[in-house]
Amino acid sequence: MGRRLLDYFPCIDWLRSYNRNLLASDASAAIIVTILVIPQSLAFALLAGLPPEAGLYASILPAMAYAIFGTGNTLAVGPVALISLMSAAAVGDVAEAGTAGYAVASVALALVSGLMLLIMGLLRLGFLSNFISHPVISGFITASGLLIAASQLRHIFGIELAGDNLIELAQSFWLSTGAVHGPTLLVGMLALVFLYLVRHYLALGLSRLGIEARISGMLVRSGPIIAVVVATSLAAIMNLDDLGLSVVGDVPSGLPALGMPDGPLALFQALLVPAFLISIVTFVESVSLAHKLAARRKERISPDQELLGLGAANIASALSGGFAVAGGFSRSIVNFDAGARTPAAGALTAVCIGVVTFFFTSLFYYLPHAILGATVIIAVLTLVDVTVIRQTWMYSKHDGAALISTLAVTLLIGVTAGILTGIALSLILYLWRTSRPHSALVGRIYGSEHFRNIHRYKTETDPHLMILRVDESLYFANARYLEDRIYTLILEQPQLTDFVLMCPAVNYIDASALESLEAINGRLSDAGIRLHLSEVKGPVMDRLDKSTFLKALTGEVFLSTYRAWCKLHKAEEDSPGTEEVEVQS
Amino acid sequence: MGRRLLDYFPCIDWLRSYNRNLLASDASAAIIVTILVIPQSLAFALLAGLPPEAGLYASILPAMAYAIFGTGNTLAVGPVALISLMSAAAVGDVAEAGTAGYAVASVALALVSGLMLLIMGLLRLGFLSNFISHPVISGFITASGLLIAASQLRHIFGIELAGDNLIELAQSFWLSTGAVHGPTLLVGMLALVFLYLVRHYLALGLSRLGIEARISGMLVRSGPIIAVVVATSLAAIMNLDDLGLSVVGDVPSGLPALGMPDGPLALFQALLVPAFLISIVTFVESVSLAHKLAARRKERISPDQELLGLGAANIASALSGGFAVAGGFSRSIVNFDAGARTPAAGALTAVCIGVVTFFFTSLFYYLPHAILGATVIIAVLTLVDVTVIRQTWMYSKHDGAALISTLAVTLLIGVTAGILTGIALSLILYLWRTSRPHSALVGRIYGSEHFRNIHRYKTETDPHLMILRVDESLYFANARYLEDRIYTLILEQPQLTDFVLMCPAVNYIDASALESLEAINGRLSDAGIRLHLSEVKGPVMDRLDKSTFLKALTGEVFLSTYRAWCKLHKAEEDSPGTEEVEVQS
Repeated sequence: MGRRLLDYFPCIDWLRSYNRNLLASDASAAIIVTILVIPQSLAFALLAGLPPEAGLYASILPAMAYAIFGTGNTLAVGPVALISLMSAAAVGDVAEAGTAGYAVASVALALVSGLMLLIMGLLRLGFLSNFISHPVISGFITASGLLIAASQLRHIFGIELAGDNLIELAQSFWLSTGAVHGPTLLVGMLALVFLYLVRHYLALGLSRLGIEARISGMLVRSGPIIAVVVATSLAAIMNLDDLGLSVVGDVPSGLPALGMPDGPLALFQALLVPAFLISIVTFVESVSLAHKLAARRKERISPDQELLGLGAANIASALSGGFAVAGGFSRSIVNFDAGARTPAAGALTAVCIGVVTFFFTSLFYYLPHAILGATVIIAVLTLVDVTVIRQTWMYSKHDGAALISTLAVTLLIGVTAGILTGIALSLILYLWRTSRPHSALVGRIYGSEHFRNIHRYKTETDPHLMILRVDESLYFANARYLEDRIYTLILEQPQLTDFVLMCPAVNYIDASALESLEAINGRLSDAGIRLHLSEVKGPVMDRLDKSTFLKALTGEVFLSTYRAWCKLHKAEEDSPGTEEVEVQS
Repeated sequence: MGRRLLDYFPCIDWLRSYNRNLLASDASAAIIVTILVIPQSLAFALLAGLPPEAGLYASILPAMAYAIFGTGNTLAVGPVALISLMSAAAVGDVAEAGTAGYAVASVALALVSGLMLLIMGLLRLGFLSNFISHPVISGFITASGLLIAASQLRHIFGIELAGDNLIELAQSFWLSTGAVHGPTLLVGMLALVFLYLVRHYLALGLSRLGIEARISGMLVRSGPIIAVVVATSLAAIMNLDDLGLSVVGDVPSGLPALGMPDGPLALFQALLVPAFLISIVTFVESVSLAHKLAARRKERISPDQELLGLGAANIASALSGGFAVAGGFSRSIVNFDAGARTPAAGALTAVCIGVVTFFFTSLFYYLPHAILGATVIIAVLTLVDVTVIRQTWMYSKHDGAALISTLAVTLLIGVTAGILTGIALSLILYLWRTSRPHSALVGRIYGSEHFRNIHRYKTETDPHLMILRVDESLYFANARYLEDRIYTLILEQPQLTDFVLMCPAVNYIDASALESLEAINGRLSDAGIRLHLSEVKGPVMDRLDKSTFLKALTGEVFLSTYRAWCKLHKAEEDSPGTEEVEVQS
């Protein structure tokens, strides 16, 4: 399946039919998104350890690049909390916070991650993200939300806080308790309470007033901008910064300078692993969000093309002094609810934010950090989902263990260790499970052609004949286990003359398992027992035909277990193919 | 299943019934083994980069320890080629060859590996070895055989050779070609030709003379000791060492001093990974050998207890100045053929070798290194199995790729990289295969209750009804793949009203796959299609009952696909349970 060059530019499709109506929808959405997401963009830049303008820069070119290469009509790309946290953790390992090297490393990380996404898109490696299980993602997101909220307490309490995990943050908090700044705490708490009430009760109130859900949703999401405007105005009028309230201060106006990030090769190498994890999380989160938004409007997205769009966005972010970006949940929901119709809405948002960055950054001077911190805390607490822990544990202990381990390691050690632990553990648990497959001795359901577990059903059996159904593909990790199971079983039934391995759930037999089958065949033969197979699937049979196993097999391969029963059952009658066999007493 | 303390000492069982007959058999076997394996023990010590006496030490206490804790009656434990090579590669990374530090590191490696085996035995982690597939082992052993043979060319040519892989060995050989020593080469070539002829043609000749296979096998295996005796005598009489022929020289007599290996903690840490790989290879090879020997006499071994036996042997080796040991193929075969009956044979061999070490080491003074090199080369070339490469590749491309990669990386980079590559690749290929499961649209075999692939069989289908059989457990790595497959399928059949997912080969549904099923259910529901399941296995159903999925399911769960067909098929008749349904035109 070759792709034409034009296929890499999905914007061509929607631009062809673009018209005034679409423009009107997209433009109004863009204005709303711009107003609502600016506080977030500033706050996530701080979360990533960068100056606030980096958040604006990361909202301009990346959104334009995604509009060209992305396939999600309403996905809004820019700074997001989770990725900002991962960026801060990765960059904090290679550079001192607040230094020029830190900014360089943040940009380098976005570049490496963008290139990885691009390469994954070109090589169609999107399936790699399938190897992260949902419980691991759940645990990781919940833990990240808690970590982010904890880290933002620095702004609420007006103290210094540092650390990559809850333990370090708690120690740091403990050491700084003496420095808590009263006025800051007051502003921060007021903002938290206000934002909490808006988010949790405003929608309820508005719906009682009969306001449409879409509109009330938008009003709820305007909480942060209202808090920002009110607090910034008050701080400016009352000169609260003189009281020691920390404010954003000078934000350079003008558009970002374009340029290649430049750092030593060792820096890029040191960022490879975190960049890869950020790429995977960016992809998983953005695509699942894009899927959900697209499904609501019966649209489709192309995962491999999304990799290109996200890759281009991150590279654009790196070239314009931004940091790692992804498709953001709240900015996308605002975009969707505000009526965006095509990716042009994202591009127009970028233009609007560009205008703000060019002309209006002085307005942010008196914006208190405490307000930004409160905005982030309220935003990320929606990531925390505790009910899923119990549900997952109830459904499957393995999945629950993967979730809880990811959660615990992320909280107690850090994001990189957390997600790596989750991925490794879920793979190991999967291999562990398939290495000890379920198998059942089966007997005939009286008078039927069906064979079921002798411990679950009342069945007809035969002391000369043993039928074992194995419920897993046979491969190296479980081959020896099967051998041991069979050797143990045959000791229990001394009259045994025929052993049937029933294979309806065996989708594959690898070379190691084939050797085990040969060993089983030899061992049973030594014990005077013939080995038969039944219900072998077509593809498995094709493969066995290429080996010498079928020649060495002491018994037969039966199409159905019933035929094996008819042939091998030492009953009064033994003509194969008859529909009924007398029930043994 | 608790184990009693006595269960950890299997020797108690056989000692209870030990008698004069058994002693006679075991003692005569011990004498034969002692004579035949001494050249090997010296040669493998050189291969491990150690002085020859280390090979003797590694044959005394380890064999005694195994006799106490091991369960293989005829398995002989001592230095083996593969493990000696792995030891040399690992120790060569942390210490300079020929230094005191090198000997310390060899001993430390045996200790760490022994402790790991012991811990694996106590925790019953023997199943870990199942994660190395047979093709990986095959590729590793063949490559190791070639590497060992290449490294021994140093003794045949009388030159210096160093390197962990074929490339380094070839470079080293090229640089040393000027230093080739004529007399040494002559002795080495004569020994190689003699040993080759003995191994490949003597048995043939003896069987023509009507000699029993067991006896002729033993005579064939006496080739090395004959070569040793003849060459050593000639070298002593003719003072060949004056010609520059390299001989073993002074071997300290007396038993090894016992003591804890002592080295910096960093040394032990650096050896952790190679020690783990050596433990796994030791276990896999020793246990598969013990299994084969035991099966010939209808005896059984206990893999978890074998871990304890092998662990004790390696610890004993470390305490007595030896190096890493395992169950050796040729020494075990000699032991078996010479009539050993119980592990006492191993203990008695140890006593005999102890006597040799105490009194007779001066006899080895004139033993030429070239003879030892020739002995090793002829021994390890039997490890090289080329036919298995082609067979494995023919049977399965995945298994073939794992084998060839292991082989290539071992030869070209080294043993540690080789086995790690093999393990990683076989796991990745397995995950890759299960992440893209086989699935088939099925139809009803006319007039029957059976449903088969519509592309393989002539079947009855229904434009309103689609039945997909998925041939794999559903888990995180393939959940999204299944979603995509179903979304694509339903677009192809616009009249569709009912979709049945047929699950006879689904042995497990994890939490990620459950979410995908919920997503599929929602998406199909939006498209006006009901989702049904059929032939869901008992354990899977038990698990689904714990979730909310079954409540949300738009369709039903059918015990058999035939019942689903009867209920959902829009044919003339629709009473479920009838045996025949009219065939649609």
